[in-house]
Amino acid sequence: MFIREIESFIEEDLGYDDVSCTIVPDRPAEAIIFTKEDCTVAGIDEAISIFYYFGVQAETDFEDGDQLKKGDIIFRLRGGAVSILRAERISLNFLGHLSGIATLTKKCTDIVRKHSETTRVACTRKTTPGIRKFEKLAVAAGGGDTHRFNLSDAVMIKDNHVKLMGIEAAVKAAKKTSFTRKIEVEVESAQDALLAAGLGADIIMLDNMQPEAVKETLKILEKKGLRNSVIVEASGGISLENLEAYSKTGVDVISMGSLIHKSSWIDISLEMIDIGET
Amino acid sequence: MFIREIESFIEEDLGYDDVSCTIVPDRPAEAIIFTKEDCTVAGIDEAISIFYYFGVQAETDFEDGDQLKKGDIIFRLRGGAVSILRAERISLNFLGHLSGIATLTKKCTDIVRKHSETTRVACTRKTTPGIRKFEKLAVAAGGGDTHRFNLSDAVMIKDNHVKLMGIEAAVKAAKKTSFTRKIEVEVESAQDALLAAGLGADIIMLDNMQPEAVKETLKILEKKGLRNSVIVEASGGISLENLEAYSKTGVDVISMGSLIHKSSWIDISLEMIDIGET
Amino acid sequence: MFIREIESFIEEDLGYDDVSCTIVPDRPAEAIIFTKEDCTVAGIDEAISIFYYFGVQAETDFEDGDQLKKGDIIFRLRGGAVSILRAERISLNFLGHLSGIATLTKKCTDIVRKHSETTRVACTRKTTPGIRKFEKLAVAAGGGDTHRFNLSDAVMIKDNHVKLMGIEAAVKAAKKTSFTRKIEVEVESAQDALLAAGLGADIIMLDNMQPEAVKETLKILEKKGLRNSVIVEASGGISLENLEAYSKTGVDVISMGSLIHKSSWIDISLEMIDIGET
Amino acid sequence: MFIREIESFIEEDLGYDDVSCTIVPDRPAEAIIFTKEDCTVAGIDEAISIFYYFGVQAETDFEDGDQLKKGDIIFRLRGGAVSILRAERISLNFLGHLSGIATLTKKCTDIVRKHSETTRVACTRKTTPGIRKFEKLAVAAGGGDTHRFNLSDAVMIKDNHVKLMGIEAAVKAAKKTSFTRKIEVEVESAQDALLAAGLGADIIMLDNMQPEAVKETLKILEKKGLRNSVIVEASGGISLENLEAYSKTGVDVISMGSLIHKSSWIDISLEMIDIGET
Amino acid sequence: MFIREIESFIEEDLGYDDVSCTIVPDRPAEAIIFTKEDCTVAGIDEAISIFYYFGVQAETDFEDGDQLKKGDIIFRLRGGAVSILRAERISLNFLGHLSGIATLTKKCTDIVRKHSETTRVACTRKTTPGIRKFEKLAVAAGGGDTHRFNLSDAVMIKDNHVKLMGIEAAVKAAKKTSFTRKIEVEVESAQDALLAAGLGADIIMLDNMQPEAVKETLKILEKKGLRNSVIVEASGGISLENLEAYSKTGVDVISMGSLIHKSSWIDISLEMIDIGET
Amino acid sequence: MFIREIESFIEEDLGYDDVSCTIVPDRPAEAIIFTKEDCTVAGIDEAISIFYYFGVQAETDFEDGDQLKKGDIIFRLRGGAVSILRAERISLNFLGHLSGIATLTKKCTDIVRKHSETTRVACTRKTTPGIRKFEKLAVAAGGGDTHRFNLSDAVMIKDNHVKLMGIEAAVKAAKKTSFTRKIEVEVESAQDALLAAGLGADIIMLDNMQPEAVKETLKILEKKGLRNSVIVEASGGISLENLEAYSKTGVDVISMGSLIHKSSWIDISLEMIDIGET
Repeated sequence: MFIREIESFIEEDLGYDDVSCTIVPDRPAEAIIFTKEDCTVAGIDEAISIFYYFGVQAETDFEDGDQLKKGDIIFRLRGGAVSILRAERISLNFLGHLSGIATLTKKCTDIVRKHSETTRVACTRKTTPGIRKFEKLAVAAGGGDTHRFNLSDAVMIKDNHVKLMGIEAAVKAAKKTSFTRKIEVEVESAQDALLAAGLGADIIMLDNMQPEAVKETLKILEKKGLRNSVIVEASGGISLENLEAYSKTGVDVISMGSLIHKSSWIDISLEMIDIGET
Repeated sequence: MFIREIESFIEEDLGYDDVSCTIVPDRPAEAIIFTKEDCTVAGIDEAISIFYYFGVQAETDFEDGDQLKKGDIIFRLRGGAVSILRAERISLNFLGHLSGIATLTKKCTDIVRKHSETTRVACTRKTTPGIRKFEKLAVAAGGGDTHRFNLSDAVMIKDNHVKLMGIEAAVKAAKKTSFTRKIEVEVESAQDALLAAGLGADIIMLDNMQPEAVKETLKILEKKGLRNSVIVEASGGISLENLEAYSKTGVDVISMGSLIHKSSWIDISLEMIDIGET
Repeated sequence: MFIREIESFIEEDLGYDDVSCTIVPDRPAEAIIFTKEDCTVAGIDEAISIFYYFGVQAETDFEDGDQLKKGDIIFRLRGGAVSILRAERISLNFLGHLSGIATLTKKCTDIVRKHSETTRVACTRKTTPGIRKFEKLAVAAGGGDTHRFNLSDAVMIKDNHVKLMGIEAAVKAAKKTSFTRKIEVEVESAQDALLAAGLGADIIMLDNMQPEAVKETLKILEKKGLRNSVIVEASGGISLENLEAYSKTGVDVISMGSLIHKSSWIDISLEMIDIGET
Repeated sequence: MFIREIESFIEEDLGYDDVSCTIVPDRPAEAIIFTKEDCTVAGIDEAISIFYYFGVQAETDFEDGDQLKKGDIIFRLRGGAVSILRAERISLNFLGHLSGIATLTKKCTDIVRKHSETTRVACTRKTTPGIRKFEKLAVAAGGGDTHRFNLSDAVMIKDNHVKLMGIEAAVKAAKKTSFTRKIEVEVESAQDALLAAGLGADIIMLDNMQPEAVKETLKILEKKGLRNSVIVEASGGISLENLEAYSKTGVDVISMGSLIHKSSWIDISLEMIDIGET
Repeated sequence: MFIREIESFIEEDLGYDDVSCTIVPDRPAEAIIFTKEDCTVAGIDEAISIFYYFGVQAETDFEDGDQLKKGDIIFRLRGGAVSILRAERISLNFLGHLSGIATLTKKCTDIVRKHSETTRVACTRKTTPGIRKFEKLAVAAGGGDTHRFNLSDAVMIKDNHVKLMGIEAAVKAAKKTSFTRKIEVEVESAQDALLAAGLGADIIMLDNMQPEAVKETLKILEKKGLRNSVIVEASGGISLENLEAYSKTGVDVISMGSLIHKSSWIDISLEMIDIGET
Repeated sequence: MFIREIESFIEEDLGYDDVSCTIVPDRPAEAIIFTKEDCTVAGIDEAISIFYYFGVQAETDFEDGDQLKKGDIIFRLRGGAVSILRAERISLNFLGHLSGIATLTKKCTDIVRKHSETTRVACTRKTTPGIRKFEKLAVAAGGGDTHRFNLSDAVMIKDNHVKLMGIEAAVKAAKKTSFTRKIEVEVESAQDALLAAGLGADIIMLDNMQPEAVKETLKILEKKGLRNSVIVEASGGISLENLEAYSKTGVDVISMGSLIHKSSWIDISLEMIDIGET
């Protein structure tokens, strides 16, 4: 995290001054951060940055993506009591929120792994405003694919672009942008999938197709000899409930906005273990 | 929203350039934003700010806190097709995320209202880093209480402060800070609640007490003639499952981090309804 | 101070480059910062942050709020001559301005203490744009009360709000905002003070009332049994000249914009004491 | 003012939300801003920028530097009541503070004008951190000279630079920096003034010299034929009390940090004149 | 351009105040911006943003990438004289610098077009710090390829990455990052090109190979049936002098840092054509 | 460089994440930065700031302005391989661009020195948006004069100001601004030069005059006894081709926008010399 980012997160939590901490005597203290639930942890680096800014020493045996058991100690902290208290909520908010995303992602990738060694689970651009970077990295920590980070990352021709100019013109125009970027086309039928693949799209996104339709489309692409030259992504309305069905289709990527927008925070706490005596 | 904020959210979603939009011809267009689920809407003002920045006209019949039915049209948009497409994801991310929080909050306040006219449901400082302001206002839209926004907002004497100096010294020190702020003390026993109330705390937070213990504590405060001079808040481990039990205790405030960290986004979509012809 | 703040203050004083310092040879040097007037010092932490940024070691025996005598050495500095020179004006501007506020505040609280052990002297939102945080903390250093920092800090129902909706409706509406905040009502008559107190306001601000009227209002509140449930603040046109009269009224808080806007800087200087030889 | 600046001043005064204004009904309103004291006004443009940001129409007959009589109406405002209330404190803080500086500066320049048509009164770099730009322009509004804005503005060889390398070496080094900048040398004796003038300094600052010594130094420069090739500035310990004595010396510039750091705010108020009815 | 960006460019050119413009009377004025050299124009949008910020009306018949003849009028401006003068240098610096890049790029693409319909000329990450976004868009205006904008844009395995882990391990690791990104491998021999292509790299960059070696490598890829599945880029030491030789090799992309770092500004001027009379 | 600046340059080059570096194992490494061309180096301090931010130790024997031979090692670096790779492009972009400017400036000053010991070569405000500060210091490193940094630096009365109010009124108005600033007048004839000098301008800029006309104007100023009281600058259309002719005129300053806008980067490279083994 940039210092600029850390300071803006601190400012959000602090206001002009921590009026509770101004009344307490500062003292050398020790604390632990531990998880109250099994989880796939994420946010380790963000927490370290925050502790470092406050001059709190933080030791950890874990890194993003590790599987934790309820009770596992994520950090052992040593520093001024006031500094630890100021860093507490900000670091826990990162750990709790990001571990929630990583854990849900892990759950989804585990489901998919039962049926496919290679299919990826990806998130989308449906991310909480302001912290996409951190949320996408949490998806990666959970074994998921970050998909594109922003509108510059790849050329994505969506339904509305198609409405504006048609698939053929859109792909041709897209090919004139930088060669370093992949071209993805969103389609709603096997026919359009074929068209896009034939035009040289790198990725075909099958939008809101049922698992059967996905399977059928893959078969048609196969038959036309286009299966290996494109990555096929299923997207739209995929949740924990129907994920298994999509896993069996043989599609390359399953993207789920819900990795982020249906995730719940992991319950992670800080406990002062040595704070002197009153 | 400040222009500075809008631009930082746009930059996050845009990267250096929207490579997909550079290939499409711009054209006057119309679009609607509608909800695919019943919800309590929030994020209306944020979305308006974003559309305004992009020069897109946005009409709405709703304001934050309104109850929406599946299919309700939240916005009618009119502007350049490219501008609408650029504003789409950012505004939807605000609407989806914030309406999710408002909707869960509404659900919780409805549960509480069955047993109490006055008990408030409040959120905490467990908020997604970077957008606390918006999340807290979404809680308010759902009929909840924002609680303090940051560490400057009220003096909150928590367990760790107590460990550092004891309740009595802490409350006395707190009283020396500005008279404009309330003093809240977190306690874990009826005895400490009495102590804090006797010292003149404005708010007593009963931390991780079972509903029975809450009821008991209120009774003791009543008996000592201290019930009316303090606001009593129950906090810690309160979820949809046990909320009803807490509602019946007669406590003044029930605070739940889960209003935010267990909320799911509402599925809200944008559809181009007139985009010219290809 | 955030690094972001320090850098913006440096940039203001530096422009693009310190053209005077580019011509001098750098050299290890020592300097002292001392006061040329008796004062209540403030700005110690701000100065330390600035020296730290420039890599200058700063030792001090004082903290904000200490009483200093003319000639007292506030800091002993050790570092590169150029670094000391660059930090000089910025740190002195903080020390001089903030100590001026602290000193005037101390003078006012001393006057009040002659007649009351408990009455507080508070500042207002009349602060120099951009540095309210620092000025309010200087008031605290001088023994004053910071009052609310900004419009989110407490609900203040002022004359214009009353004009818009009346006291009763305003207090009722205010009570619906977060329970963590106090409600203050500005009134211009004893009658309105009674009304507001009866409605459950936490603080009554008597606006532009003469000392006699303040005393009278307090008496009426007493008679109605409302004196102990509200904090009463006198405000408007209170200066060093009439402060004593207000001190004798028994009011809880006397607020004075003049703590900040009539304060003069304390004359504090930096002197190089060892800069090598030419 | 840059939008970035306006937003940071608003944020300072607003916190996350104006909790008082959320409870009032918005309504078209009219208000006036008027002065309660005679003054030289400053801050007009800053106030206009703030009103413009809030969508409040502001009409004025005045510009910075105009002489106002007690009761003069500086602005007539028209806009939403809530918008006017939000802009109130920020714009008044600029007007009050800056008009205070302009008024004190005008008082000083008037004193000087009694004895000299050409002598300038200038401020220094002793300015409130964060708003130097505005304070210096207020000095100009009062008829004063802004002196250099920051360390890049001119080469100023001060006592500590002299200690580091001697006057001669310093002036020679200074002459190697850009030809677009003037070179000023701070001296404490007529002898050093002669030396600096002889070396081609553009400005000689007589530091902490008594009026007699200033006069004597000017005479010596005259005798050596150097009076016309340098601007001579008296600085250090000059206040309203001894300003007249310095005015009679014939010096070109009298610089006074006190223009800013001893100024008091002008009492300027906003009054709602039409706010609908309750 | 974001408002934030515009304001920072203005602040850089303005300092605290435009002291020259404060002395001139403002007046409605008209001006033209024209080119003194034939060029491929770029920076049109940037200039429009700047004029818009200053309230200056700007009309143009051109867009980025248009071929201009010496004397062509790029903008007709109408607005306050002072506003036009303030916007002048900033807008001209964008137009001059960016048109210089576009013009050099056009020259290079024209050379390449003589021998190949499809070979692209691309820039690199050797861009002037702070304005890469604008410089890359200027390359696009000149008919060039922007290549990746930053380190997140594509996975580029360069010589030092290869030294750290070998080509095979690096490509395998790269394939685990998001499927939305292309993988480019920098090689220095035909053998490594084959290896990388065989591993499924999307782009092979032939680093510092002579035209003959490039041709030879393409032949070998062809023979192994790998030519069509990879994009081949030649890079390193390619200048106007040897560009033609590379154009004849049949390589897909020729990248040249010199598009930016050897470009010279186009001489573009503003002339006041109606400024009232003195 | 401010931390704020370093972080914005890093963010520009990094995007959200360095996807290439996430795949490589980090390892202690050593690298050198060396020049592939003879040059006058600049950007040393900027590079050091960047390495310091990344925790990379950087040793150098050089400082800005030193003459380097092809192959000279500018920096020896020691740090984590990934950190070195991340700092590489940003630091090289500064070194390459700024050394290009310093080298061209040195070439120009060397030409001028053949005919004049004192004539200065200066740059103008034609600088790349966003990094003027660094470019001007690179000009200084090459022995050039930075001229004014921004519009606040000196009063420059240009042709358009003259059109608005005439030379005489403009100079008189300029003299009313701060005494700390020089006044420069742009003229197009010897007659106007005389007028401006007679009015007391500090600097006369001869705009677009041929060398002969410059010489003639200097002679006329000499004859009128005004040559010593003004600095005379030749500007407009001066390039490497005609610089020598201007050098012989005896003018004080020759300003050339081309120092910056016709400069080419110096080819400076980083090479890993010890990166462990694969």
